[in-house]
Amino acid sequence: MHPSHLFNKSDFIMSIKDATIQEVDQALLQSNNAFSKYAQTALKERAALLRTIAVELDALGDALIQVTMSETNLTEVRLKGERARTIFQLNSYADSCERGDWLEVSINTTDAQRVPPKPDVRKTKLPLGPVVVFGSSNFPFAYSTAGGDTASALAAGCTVIVKAHPAHPMTSNMVHGAIKKALKNLNMDEDIFIHMHGASTQVGEALVKHALTKAVGFTGSFQGGMALFNWANGRTEPIPVFAEMGSVNPVYLFPEKLKEQPEFFAQQYAESITLGVGQFCTNPGLIIGVEGELLDAFIRMLGEKIAAISAGKMLHEGIANAYKLKSKEAVDQYRVRVAGRSKDVDDSISGTPLVATVDAETFLANPLLSEEVFGPFSLVVACRDMNQLHAVASSMKGQLTSTLIATETELHDHQTLVHTIASKCGRLILNGVPTGVEVCLAMQHGGPFPATTDARFTSVGGDAIKRFARPVAYQNFSNALLPDELKNENPLKIWRTVNDVFTKDAV
Amino acid sequence: MHPSHLFNKSDFIMSIKDATIQEVDQALLQSNNAFSKYAQTALKERAALLRTIAVELDALGDALIQVTMSETNLTEVRLKGERARTIFQLNSYADSCERGDWLEVSINTTDAQRVPPKPDVRKTKLPLGPVVVFGSSNFPFAYSTAGGDTASALAAGCTVIVKAHPAHPMTSNMVHGAIKKALKNLNMDEDIFIHMHGASTQVGEALVKHALTKAVGFTGSFQGGMALFNWANGRTEPIPVFAEMGSVNPVYLFPEKLKEQPEFFAQQYAESITLGVGQFCTNPGLIIGVEGELLDAFIRMLGEKIAAISAGKMLHEGIANAYKLKSKEAVDQYRVRVAGRSKDVDDSISGTPLVATVDAETFLANPLLSEEVFGPFSLVVACRDMNQLHAVASSMKGQLTSTLIATETELHDHQTLVHTIASKCGRLILNGVPTGVEVCLAMQHGGPFPATTDARFTSVGGDAIKRFARPVAYQNFSNALLPDELKNENPLKIWRTVNDVFTKDAV
Repeated sequence: MHPSHLFNKSDFIMSIKDATIQEVDQALLQSNNAFSKYAQTALKERAALLRTIAVELDALGDALIQVTMSETNLTEVRLKGERARTIFQLNSYADSCERGDWLEVSINTTDAQRVPPKPDVRKTKLPLGPVVVFGSSNFPFAYSTAGGDTASALAAGCTVIVKAHPAHPMTSNMVHGAIKKALKNLNMDEDIFIHMHGASTQVGEALVKHALTKAVGFTGSFQGGMALFNWANGRTEPIPVFAEMGSVNPVYLFPEKLKEQPEFFAQQYAESITLGVGQFCTNPGLIIGVEGELLDAFIRMLGEKIAAISAGKMLHEGIANAYKLKSKEAVDQYRVRVAGRSKDVDDSISGTPLVATVDAETFLANPLLSEEVFGPFSLVVACRDMNQLHAVASSMKGQLTSTLIATETELHDHQTLVHTIASKCGRLILNGVPTGVEVCLAMQHGGPFPATTDARFTSVGGDAIKRFARPVAYQNFSNALLPDELKNENPLKIWRTVNDVFTKDAV
Repeated sequence: MHPSHLFNKSDFIMSIKDATIQEVDQALLQSNNAFSKYAQTALKERAALLRTIAVELDALGDALIQVTMSETNLTEVRLKGERARTIFQLNSYADSCERGDWLEVSINTTDAQRVPPKPDVRKTKLPLGPVVVFGSSNFPFAYSTAGGDTASALAAGCTVIVKAHPAHPMTSNMVHGAIKKALKNLNMDEDIFIHMHGASTQVGEALVKHALTKAVGFTGSFQGGMALFNWANGRTEPIPVFAEMGSVNPVYLFPEKLKEQPEFFAQQYAESITLGVGQFCTNPGLIIGVEGELLDAFIRMLGEKIAAISAGKMLHEGIANAYKLKSKEAVDQYRVRVAGRSKDVDDSISGTPLVATVDAETFLANPLLSEEVFGPFSLVVACRDMNQLHAVASSMKGQLTSTLIATETELHDHQTLVHTIASKCGRLILNGVPTGVEVCLAMQHGGPFPATTDARFTSVGGDAIKRFARPVAYQNFSNALLPDELKNENPLKIWRTVNDVFTKDAV
């Protein structure tokens, strides 16, 4: 079975229509209606839903991969990897959901002897309500229809409305099919998950502004994220938006460490910069070092390696054009010099790997040079000395990641600099590359503005669930009618703080 | 020593000047400068600071109480209680700070065998930066200068700039003195805490809009909170605002429970409505019951009890005038009937206890009737039946609290209604009163908009610290250079999740 026989892309796309405002309204009514029941499901029911979605996503098999390849130009290997990651994510958030740590249950028991009597107070979390999720273009599985935002909202007990990314509508429809099947298998309300298309901004705007929408998840551009953020805050009832809006992910080369293995790091970074045609939000777009022979050698090696990597097809023409424009704009700046460029491919879709370099003084004077160029591009900034490198670090806006290439001694000798760098990012990597975001509880995929709209949350790892829930305290409630996680006997066997001490024991 | 000899109120107030824009700018520069060092203090140093502030606050003795009485019209008993609570709060947040649960440390260790190798990822929290705190008028100690927002921001590792509430500037100055003394005793930078006055909105606006401000804490009116929220979101770099903006705190009377003790509840609510001249954000402003003889009797008893409670002095003339206006406006509405009114006092400062009643149909048709009347006022809404009571519950906006007066059987028989009520509030009280916010970890003092600007946080209890910190992950870092809470050996002996399991053990 060859999926291109099953799907004629252009015919299919012709049939994709933007939702109307009436359909948005109807969707929110249905979602809110489903929410009133879904909000009360047990953790294990939500976990079962996530695990069943994972099974159904897997069951889409090669057909899905072929369709997504045709829509995104991503390679089969990459897409199979991304689907495996998405399945892992669904299963891992199911585990987190069921473990219940994200509920942050705390119980303070009564003291009737005290004057006035101390009440019995028990805190758990409730879901916020219907969540609107915007699929991303660069992660058609992991950050789209059944991706991290959907999984964490469902785990929190929220119903979800996904606006499919217009760059991969067929993929989104197929994944929607898998979710529908999962809901049906479990006899759950199909309105727990609603799917719609909207290439125009009107659909997104109507979704975010609808009174029944209670939160928004987004991964994409700064412009897109800020539009949602402003709509959400301008509502009569403002709602939280978690928008992950990308980053330049600065890499700081400390001289002693670089000296140990210049070629190794050049190789590692040539690969990281061009991984997935540079279309990762954690792509290393800035490399900051100290000028001298060593850095020159590194730049030369990196330039040679980049020149040897072929241009790859980008997600779609819009992104390829933006990359051409922005990378050209960057290298056209005063005192910016190309250090290595792959052979241009004369088509409208490829992204040419490109590394440039500039001195720190020029960099600090030109804000355009610290802007993200989405694609296989990186700028090496040569600082006079470690003080100027510190000045460059201080000038950074909020980042998803920062990376230190440094020896133990260098870290020890530059603790203030390390603190400055940490203060600007959500994740700090030592002697590695920023690409590759491990799905685990300790992961922080977030960071100070403009990396995200709220640095206090993450969109990767079990804690992503916390974006979509709020605490509620029950005071002097009857044990029988408390939610299970708050009952004396701890029937869910979850970790709780009882009178300020972590325990799984009964009260 | 009689404090009125020490402080001549009018002379003193003459000397209170609004900060200039230059002073605001200077304050933020100093605060940000102090932050770079304070952010790196150990948890126990921050805890020591909070405990020392508590000692110095206590040491202000009767002199402080007398000054605050003269500024706020609050009674000596109330103010002594509030100071004790504030001292408890400082000590309790010190404990929370040191216990480190709020850091939500999680560690996922490496798996070098996996392909690709699984990195070592460890997550803790960093403080956001300088926090601007707006003192409240109704809690001159507990939610002002050294109050809950200040304590939680300092615990998080943030420096603080307090804008004193213009209704009690001398109190604020004295408390500032105590904090200065605490910082001096501990040889800490005095710029960790900066105090300024600003009766005009310009000072507040400049503080919130300053680029170096990283978060805002506020307790006060809806109008005030929304002004800060909009300024904060309109910045080039939006920042989080936690504004607690009050609530009507609906109380639902279920018939069977009311029947057991109508007089007891009438007494309890007459006291709760008039406690502190009704100037609590958890004041029960709406009481919802089912029409009939039983409710009539309750209304009559409540009315009689309210009529027998004398008018008390309110915080200041502005608040007293607003109360007169708003309570009159409420009782002047179509079909609203006064059920009990205390004897009016013919002065510009007193608040007359007042209870009114209306039928649910009228209530549902008139949005003005669900608005907060700040002061000793409550409106009893009579519903046709439990279905209409559910309709009233569904019509509610977000609340800090909701209260159920209900038997076990009634709760059991109306679970959907209970869920509706819970979905609208931050705290759900059974058979008690909403006034009295216990300071404990399990407390949730927050709630859906418009009770607060972010339902996912609390301003009371140790979790209040979480408003002012953000997660940061360290990937493949060297143990020696990790923050203490992330080190293998767990030198702080705090609770952490290691590979998804809670433990205090070393890695």
